[in-house]
Amino acid sequence: MIIDCHGHYTTAPKPLDAFRAQQVAALGDAARTAALTLPSISDDAIRTSIEGAQLRIQRERGTDVTIFSPRASGMAHHIGDAATSEVWSRLCNDMVHRVCTLFPRNFVGVCQLPQSPGVAPANCVAELERCVTQLGFVGCNLNPDPSGGYWTDPPLIDRWWYPLYEKMVELDVPAMIHVSASCNPNFHTTGGHYICGDTTAFMQLITADLFKDFPTLKFIIPHGGGAVPYHWGRYRGLAQDMKRPPLPELLLRNVFFDTCVYHQPGTDLLAKVIPVENILFASEMVGAVRGIDPETGHYFDDTKRYIEAAAGLSAADRQKIYEGNARRVYGRLSAQMAKQGIG
Amino acid sequence: MIIDCHGHYTTAPKPLDAFRAQQVAALGDAARTAALTLPSISDDAIRTSIEGAQLRIQRERGTDVTIFSPRASGMAHHIGDAATSEVWSRLCNDMVHRVCTLFPRNFVGVCQLPQSPGVAPANCVAELERCVTQLGFVGCNLNPDPSGGYWTDPPLIDRWWYPLYEKMVELDVPAMIHVSASCNPNFHTTGGHYICGDTTAFMQLITADLFKDFPTLKFIIPHGGGAVPYHWGRYRGLAQDMKRPPLPELLLRNVFFDTCVYHQPGTDLLAKVIPVENILFASEMVGAVRGIDPETGHYFDDTKRYIEAAAGLSAADRQKIYEGNARRVYGRLSAQMAKQGIG
Repeated sequence: MIIDCHGHYTTAPKPLDAFRAQQVAALGDAARTAALTLPSISDDAIRTSIEGAQLRIQRERGTDVTIFSPRASGMAHHIGDAATSEVWSRLCNDMVHRVCTLFPRNFVGVCQLPQSPGVAPANCVAELERCVTQLGFVGCNLNPDPSGGYWTDPPLIDRWWYPLYEKMVELDVPAMIHVSASCNPNFHTTGGHYICGDTTAFMQLITADLFKDFPTLKFIIPHGGGAVPYHWGRYRGLAQDMKRPPLPELLLRNVFFDTCVYHQPGTDLLAKVIPVENILFASEMVGAVRGIDPETGHYFDDTKRYIEAAAGLSAADRQKIYEGNARRVYGRLSAQMAKQGIG
Repeated sequence: MIIDCHGHYTTAPKPLDAFRAQQVAALGDAARTAALTLPSISDDAIRTSIEGAQLRIQRERGTDVTIFSPRASGMAHHIGDAATSEVWSRLCNDMVHRVCTLFPRNFVGVCQLPQSPGVAPANCVAELERCVTQLGFVGCNLNPDPSGGYWTDPPLIDRWWYPLYEKMVELDVPAMIHVSASCNPNFHTTGGHYICGDTTAFMQLITADLFKDFPTLKFIIPHGGGAVPYHWGRYRGLAQDMKRPPLPELLLRNVFFDTCVYHQPGTDLLAKVIPVENILFASEMVGAVRGIDPETGHYFDDTKRYIEAAAGLSAADRQKIYEGNARRVYGRLSAQMAKQGIG
């Protein structure tokens, strides 16, 4: 079985974005905000949005299940306040839940959190709990920079985040550390901010003893871990200079990387440098890069091809990357998959 | 001959930092600022600071010349205002000039610019001109984020930067795009901010036609290009989705990567993915990572070993990486080296 741990509902029906546009237009106007009505979206519209996109591509590429969450750039936690984010997050999570209900064999849910810059992440606990205990979700996306590219909140190692971590540990759900859209003209969203968010978060984790406080807390760093595997020597060396433990001991029981790296040499490096136990298959499909690589004739984000071709991986290694690691990192995944009737 | 294009004066005598501390302590106090006296540092103190560090290591590792600039994290453009940065930059540049004068066979200068957040980079033109025409420097370090981790100035593709680019082109000097210290607790300076600065700058360059306006402008992206080579497929794919020209046509006549990648698999990837014409040898020595890699028994930043071992590089390729490309990218380098009596 092949589990893709990184898929977003990037193809949601248009009324979802239309609602968001109305919500944004009503910002600062309490009456107009109160009068907003949630969009009416039929099951058929959801089916169409999935069947022609993620489901078709799953079949074409031979993957089985996608761990599915709301569009990452759509979270846009920097817009409005915590109340804005709460309404929007609930709606987006409910949409993902409907996808998982309509296609229970193909999608398992992960939630967006109602973060807001300057607001303590404790405010996300209720929505996380709702999604996990009521909607059957198995994880969350955690935005390390709710400001959208100005990085004004405390780093992930700060106690500011601890109430959320406590709930994650209690529920046995990991977080994918995933920034959202950038509102800073310096950062292109998917080419700059995403990759820098991954790299920044990893380096934060080197500097503190977060995983002593939370030995079972688990993070997935997407996009192949940002720059980290390419600079693995630098990070090993920095940790050593800082008198930190070796990286395997310091964080590789808690930190995992996905395979959203869109060319063979990058995937080869990832598979060579990072222990196979720390790599989770993912494609980010339908996501940041949608075209065909003229050098290969295949879609850039058809990451299964790179894993298949990666030198030095045994069949057992591939099984871990495709399935075993995901079942281990997402503590509720196997039970949830059984509930949804998945193999 | 082996030219290391990325060395900083990280070992400068203590009175330099003591002066900086006094300058910072005097911020906002005009009388105290006016009364500051530049530090008195003897030639012998400079000789000692170099002979036991960069010069010794050059000899041990078998490199010949270092393109040498002030300590990157020391630039700290976010401290004080443009006047603060001007005094500090002139002093740091003069120190580098003294190193190049005392060791003309081993060091060629590159300058720090007196940038300041919110201040138009046109203010850097005079210091650049002084360093190039009077001190014999061959390039500059350009900080894409003078705010020190809040990214509040316009991106590098903005006309805001054009007066500086015009002067660079006129003088035929490239810039290494290099952030300085981070004052944002989210960004570890050498493990987060440096690598993200590299990645961010590269993505900015994909989105605009800067090199149509400046066909001969040249940038070196340090630290192996940040995350870029590892995600080369992503960047090729993003450019294609955005209907931009292929990367070689769009920017590889103007953008170059150094080899500050501190393990063999990373260097192998760099050499495989990036055209050999776009790779310049560098070590960042004495720099961000100072220890010995327990996996190899050699210094992490002994990057020559990785280039020597990189599969697929011919002797001619190595000559380009070690020397030929630097002579081409730094338009004044060969003449300056001749003047300094180098090879």
